[in-house]
Amino acid sequence: MALIVQKYGGTSVADAEKIKNVARRIIQTKEAGHQVVVVVSAMGDTTDDLIKLAQNITDKPAQRELDVLISTGEVVSSALVVMALQGMGHQAISLNGAQAGIQTDSAYSRARILRVESRRVVKELESGNIVIVAGFQGITKDMDITTLGRGGSDTTAVALAASLGAARCERYTDTEGIFTADPRIVPEAQRLDEISYDEMLELATYGSKVIHPRAVEIGELYSVPILVASSFNHKPGTLIHREVSMEIRNKVRSIAHDLDVAKITIVGVPDRPGIAASIFVPLAEAGISVDTIVQNASLENITDLTFTVARSQLQKAMAVTEPIAKKIGARECVSDAKLAKVSVVGTGMQNAPGYASTMFKTLSDKGINIELITTSEIRITCIIDETKVKDAVRALHHAFELDKKPSLK
Amino acid sequence: MALIVQKYGGTSVADAEKIKNVARRIIQTKEAGHQVVVVVSAMGDTTDDLIKLAQNITDKPAQRELDVLISTGEVVSSALVVMALQGMGHQAISLNGAQAGIQTDSAYSRARILRVESRRVVKELESGNIVIVAGFQGITKDMDITTLGRGGSDTTAVALAASLGAARCERYTDTEGIFTADPRIVPEAQRLDEISYDEMLELATYGSKVIHPRAVEIGELYSVPILVASSFNHKPGTLIHREVSMEIRNKVRSIAHDLDVAKITIVGVPDRPGIAASIFVPLAEAGISVDTIVQNASLENITDLTFTVARSQLQKAMAVTEPIAKKIGARECVSDAKLAKVSVVGTGMQNAPGYASTMFKTLSDKGINIELITTSEIRITCIIDETKVKDAVRALHHAFELDKKPSLK
Repeated sequence: MALIVQKYGGTSVADAEKIKNVARRIIQTKEAGHQVVVVVSAMGDTTDDLIKLAQNITDKPAQRELDVLISTGEVVSSALVVMALQGMGHQAISLNGAQAGIQTDSAYSRARILRVESRRVVKELESGNIVIVAGFQGITKDMDITTLGRGGSDTTAVALAASLGAARCERYTDTEGIFTADPRIVPEAQRLDEISYDEMLELATYGSKVIHPRAVEIGELYSVPILVASSFNHKPGTLIHREVSMEIRNKVRSIAHDLDVAKITIVGVPDRPGIAASIFVPLAEAGISVDTIVQNASLENITDLTFTVARSQLQKAMAVTEPIAKKIGARECVSDAKLAKVSVVGTGMQNAPGYASTMFKTLSDKGINIELITTSEIRITCIIDETKVKDAVRALHHAFELDKKPSLK
Repeated sequence: MALIVQKYGGTSVADAEKIKNVARRIIQTKEAGHQVVVVVSAMGDTTDDLIKLAQNITDKPAQRELDVLISTGEVVSSALVVMALQGMGHQAISLNGAQAGIQTDSAYSRARILRVESRRVVKELESGNIVIVAGFQGITKDMDITTLGRGGSDTTAVALAASLGAARCERYTDTEGIFTADPRIVPEAQRLDEISYDEMLELATYGSKVIHPRAVEIGELYSVPILVASSFNHKPGTLIHREVSMEIRNKVRSIAHDLDVAKITIVGVPDRPGIAASIFVPLAEAGISVDTIVQNASLENITDLTFTVARSQLQKAMAVTEPIAKKIGARECVSDAKLAKVSVVGTGMQNAPGYASTMFKTLSDKGINIELITTSEIRITCIIDETKVKDAVRALHHAFELDKKPSLK
């Protein structure tokens, strides 16, 4: 008997039939002899509907109250999944974030989990219950309700798995796992049987929407294996874990892409110490997450500074950047919202040359201009025009031979 | 400066505009120099919608999970009212039942409040906040969510007012107060400026839907004056309190009616000790609330036993009663679901004869047959055919001169 934590996303619990389907899957795990803890998201569009309710009341709802409001979505799902399980003759109980002991800081709407006090969950498991936990939410030390922000329910699930010492965290959505590229763009993309935490982190950070990097980080920190699979079929999915087979490591694993990219260039910046701080500290204080930063080689102590942000933050970022640019004596600020990132990821790149040149040549052969380049030890990212993304992903997928099923398991 | 507890019902917070209207009313009270605690119900049909969600999943949802599910409705309202107040520039905070310290037993779906631990509410008031509490819900000592059943939000409000030592509990709905009869039936019905707890309890128990008897009981026990008024205008409403002006007491105060009445008669019951217990103990154990009980005069040790139940419970009550009737040797069980109650209520009846005879003669003059009669010190109730209710209420309203505005304030 093992302890398994499962997580079902919003599309998996979108209506009564899907909730019953989820209940049947949970029961299969239970009947295989395991203890089961399940984390659920809000049904379908519930969270959006609740936000709309708030927007009808006021333009700028306080984050504390928005958290109180939207946390109800996951509570509703948790009770309904329990009802489905009970209706099928199984013993189950729902717990909200507070009851499940998900203790967070008080950064409303983007709270971080400080610890998981899983006593109640353990007690319910010991009583023979399947425990259904409302995801995406926690409680502060003052008993105020918080939500965890993007990737919240994934994070709840992996954190609970870590706290409970679960054998595995199984994360079910409408996708069948991690692929060598987005199958909607590359039909011959292959599902990966396994992937390392590091690779998954790079993929998730650079555009794969399948699992949030926060959840992967916790998984890595506490060595929780995470299975990513579909809730609509029984295909094996992808296991994210530490010990990926040695030979498979020696490869590019997957091509990620991200369309949510905008670029700001400050042209003609006087190149002196402190300039970067004078720009990026105010951006951080305004809550704008700056991604890639590139500074061109300085010519006569004048340089261009380019950075990328999410498109939704471009307007706000320009409003912060333009006055600063003026103040530091830069020539102008220009922006481009129609960009995208393509990244090749794989631990195999670490000690092997030639990957970067293959990537650049592949894009060049397709006539795709590279605007910016950034790299990590196991990733190379090129920022290109958004209209060229499909071509780029397909060409790279072919160039790195990802359309061939990996021969080793 | 006084501390005022207000309660707004579901129709008063049914949409964004109504929520803003409620916020404006709360602000008026705050700006009059008072501290304000507000209890809110779920928006409009939210509770019914949530119950439908559950019914799509399973026929018999567990009460614990149903409570988890439907308690989210009031949490949503509380957050939205706070957002409206904040949008209008006022400091406010929402608290759910657990946070507001509404501690209950664990009788899910009909929990009773054991105590109110109002420390958090007091702290928030002292910080200058308007405190918005999600009604209808509480928490057990094991931190499980309960709901309070019918009249739950009213009960939350009066219990909070009692615990906080509030000057008054103001209960706002779409009705303008307590009337001498239902104004939809008797257009000339008069609003009462005040009414005693005892009278209000009788009215509420015998058909007035304006406020639930549980809330009135707590009000009486802790001497919390309760103002019942409309949230859609500024008319003065009705004050439920102890010290009702002496001369106004000397009257019939109001005519109540209740259409939710069904009657069961066990015909030919052997009249021996223990028979009543053998019938009513099993009914109580089945959760059926038996109302009026009448036993006819015994003839040759054979009697008829009649009692009333809510119509929704008739089928279940018959299922319990019929086998018992057979076992005790009764002749048969008959039921009638098309009955109603009309009641005249007033403390003035206590030491004055003639009220009963006026009531019976008035009904008789209208050709209305009386099926059963029950009385308390300050109430006379007749059970009649449901089709005769309007005639009966109108005739009684006229006979007891309730269409004349009381001359004394």
